[in-house]
Amino acid sequence: MGLIVQKFGGTSVANIDCIRRAARRVQAAVADGHQVVVVVSAMAGTTNQLLAWCQDVMPPAPQPDTDAALSNAASTPIDADADANADAVVASGEQVTCGLMALALQQLGVPARSWQGWQLPIITTDSFSKAKIVSIQTDALLQDLATGRVAVIAGFQGVAPDGRITTLGRGGSDLSAVALAAALHADRCDIYTDVDGVYTVDPRIVARASKLAEVTYEEMLEMASAGAKVLQTRSVAVAMKCDVPLQVLSSFTDSPGTFVVKDKNLMEHQVVTGLTYTRDEAKVTLFNVPDTPGIAANIFGPLAAAQINVDMIVQSVSPNGKSTDMTFTVAKGDLARSVTALQAIQGQIGFEKLLSDAEVVKVSVIGVGMRSHAGVAATMFAALADKGINIQVISTSEIKISVLIAEAYLELALRTLHTAYGLDADEIDVTGDKIS
Amino acid sequence: MGLIVQKFGGTSVANIDCIRRAARRVQAAVADGHQVVVVVSAMAGTTNQLLAWCQDVMPPAPQPDTDAALSNAASTPIDADADANADAVVASGEQVTCGLMALALQQLGVPARSWQGWQLPIITTDSFSKAKIVSIQTDALLQDLATGRVAVIAGFQGVAPDGRITTLGRGGSDLSAVALAAALHADRCDIYTDVDGVYTVDPRIVARASKLAEVTYEEMLEMASAGAKVLQTRSVAVAMKCDVPLQVLSSFTDSPGTFVVKDKNLMEHQVVTGLTYTRDEAKVTLFNVPDTPGIAANIFGPLAAAQINVDMIVQSVSPNGKSTDMTFTVAKGDLARSVTALQAIQGQIGFEKLLSDAEVVKVSVIGVGMRSHAGVAATMFAALADKGINIQVISTSEIKISVLIAEAYLELALRTLHTAYGLDADEIDVTGDKIS
Repeated sequence: MGLIVQKFGGTSVANIDCIRRAARRVQAAVADGHQVVVVVSAMAGTTNQLLAWCQDVMPPAPQPDTDAALSNAASTPIDADADANADAVVASGEQVTCGLMALALQQLGVPARSWQGWQLPIITTDSFSKAKIVSIQTDALLQDLATGRVAVIAGFQGVAPDGRITTLGRGGSDLSAVALAAALHADRCDIYTDVDGVYTVDPRIVARASKLAEVTYEEMLEMASAGAKVLQTRSVAVAMKCDVPLQVLSSFTDSPGTFVVKDKNLMEHQVVTGLTYTRDEAKVTLFNVPDTPGIAANIFGPLAAAQINVDMIVQSVSPNGKSTDMTFTVAKGDLARSVTALQAIQGQIGFEKLLSDAEVVKVSVIGVGMRSHAGVAATMFAALADKGINIQVISTSEIKISVLIAEAYLELALRTLHTAYGLDADEIDVTGDKIS
Repeated sequence: MGLIVQKFGGTSVANIDCIRRAARRVQAAVADGHQVVVVVSAMAGTTNQLLAWCQDVMPPAPQPDTDAALSNAASTPIDADADANADAVVASGEQVTCGLMALALQQLGVPARSWQGWQLPIITTDSFSKAKIVSIQTDALLQDLATGRVAVIAGFQGVAPDGRITTLGRGGSDLSAVALAAALHADRCDIYTDVDGVYTVDPRIVARASKLAEVTYEEMLEMASAGAKVLQTRSVAVAMKCDVPLQVLSSFTDSPGTFVVKDKNLMEHQVVTGLTYTRDEAKVTLFNVPDTPGIAANIFGPLAAAQINVDMIVQSVSPNGKSTDMTFTVAKGDLARSVTALQAIQGQIGFEKLLSDAEVVKVSVIGVGMRSHAGVAATMFAALADKGINIQVISTSEIKISVLIAEAYLELALRTLHTAYGLDADEIDVTGDKIS
């Protein structure tokens, strides 16, 4: 008996049958006596189709040349208009599923009404295509819920102060759900997706992966930003900040999901909770950069100005006090632009040579237990060395250690580390892929 | 130099190439110094797809049985909710094309902004799925136009007083365009479609059809309601009432279209302006109905209560003063329900036998010249009789004569009448289909 937010992702509303299946889950929650707020994504594939259409007619994005990068050119008004027009197009995907879900509920005898972002409204900034939620007005919503209707809300979208439709960026429907749960002080926010929870590692790669009953917000946050795709990073940050009890579960099975909680039962603490990886890394090394104060700013300033996000950075110890090598990673899609931008200012920075490598992956081990346990890094390095896997870059946070390795070793590294940290499931996986 | 409304139908925005082509027409009007308001339909086929999805998940419409028909049952709240939810789904089609058209204009260097119905707003009644426009607020729109931007407005949709999305019914984008032109006192409203104007008769059936340079509002209204699909009937009525100068033309060619005007140049007056037809008629005959006062109400009341629209009606002269035969037509899709409803009250009405026939068509001749010329009907009856075509039902208005004939004779009847009224084009049609 409480207020529950149920969010259904694109695969959970991919077609009419899926929408009906999801509606039966809502019906069950209503039958249990809950007030239910449903948040829906667009049908799987729809957002990509709509974006492709926009790209097809949109003014070609100005190729960020070095001048633009250096001058940190503000986007022109016509670009902001283009983003606003595109947001109206892209937001239509959630408008469709939100109406269809309300209809599916009505067919089951559950009174329901669909809400667009602008109807509540969900007020956002006017950063079209990547808007941030400013506030959610819940009066009308609560009033309608009180009449016994289920509220079905279009995820991913909001409205700017000037009344134009905005979207929240990739995975934004997770954010919509969590923000609504926070605004409504919901008792729980259930995120229905196509996997049945959060695993110790990607089960498609490591057969003995096991589902976690609980992870902490911090771990989930690190996992999401380190490549686990099960929840959008920003949504986890908001859930953590606002203390929203989250559950990740599948709309296709009835097995319990993974709870994302404030603190795990200490009895169950593992030192390492799970492993994640991302293939979306590319490595750039600048050789013989003059080792003078401000050189890092000279390198990374122009990249930031060109909207290129740098992830891992390592500066080698200068052997002679005069020059050093600088290695860092960027998203694979940004590699070509990064190289162009840096080569254009080679004289200014004064590096001797630039090498890049796109065939790398980042593997991370994550766990709040690291805070109180030494040796987590040592175990990682030893296990990888034992298999002859070279570590190219290392970065750490309080509860995470990430290493960059050659892409070819990804599967081997994940299996090796999974075993090394004692994460292998007791039972043999259905694939029969027994790991000794 | 004026304000022009340009409306592009579904086939004119069917894909990205079509949208670009339409955008170039807008660009040309802007280059000519006009302020332009663009109204768009959904991509051809989209609305049907969205409706099909709604139908698929929607509560099955209660089969109107006789009790419901007789009690004239009001729709239950859950039905109104269903329509409201469905309208949100269906309105998304125009949201997409409206954003894409604005983007296509921007790519051509024409500043543009997309507007949804609720953003202006276009206020409608809350008769979801068939809402009527109540008012259009033009302040924000005019302010934005004054900045030099083109306004691209989603057709077919509006917003109810309670803030929910409504749609205007089939062909509603024509209505949006005309209503906007009226509200803005536009100099012209151009309706771009996939035919290049209004013809004397369907050119797919009669090779020697010719395009009309002008038709009057009244003629267009009769043609639209008698089956010509080129303009939505309600939009013509609003154009006539508000004196909106209309032009129907093709977005695929550069030939001049047809102007819909108040009064045609009298010099050019033909007695008959054009012919239309509709296959969407079915005939019902009740034999030996007691010829008593109120009997027509007994028959047509229950049909009206069941939302069945009756078109042509003929009551035969009672030979004995006691009983008569009653013949009328309904839309083909309503035939089965009509028969069921009438059979259920056979005892109450007291007719002897019911026969129905779905293989009929209605052919109409239309022209404001009829007012001042006698003999139009006589010409029609003689021409059809000459070909052995039996007239089953006749109905007339001030500027229209309609007859119901067997469907098999449709093409012959149209060709015959086209020649009889002197409408055949002088030149031989490209098909070489010379009619002597």
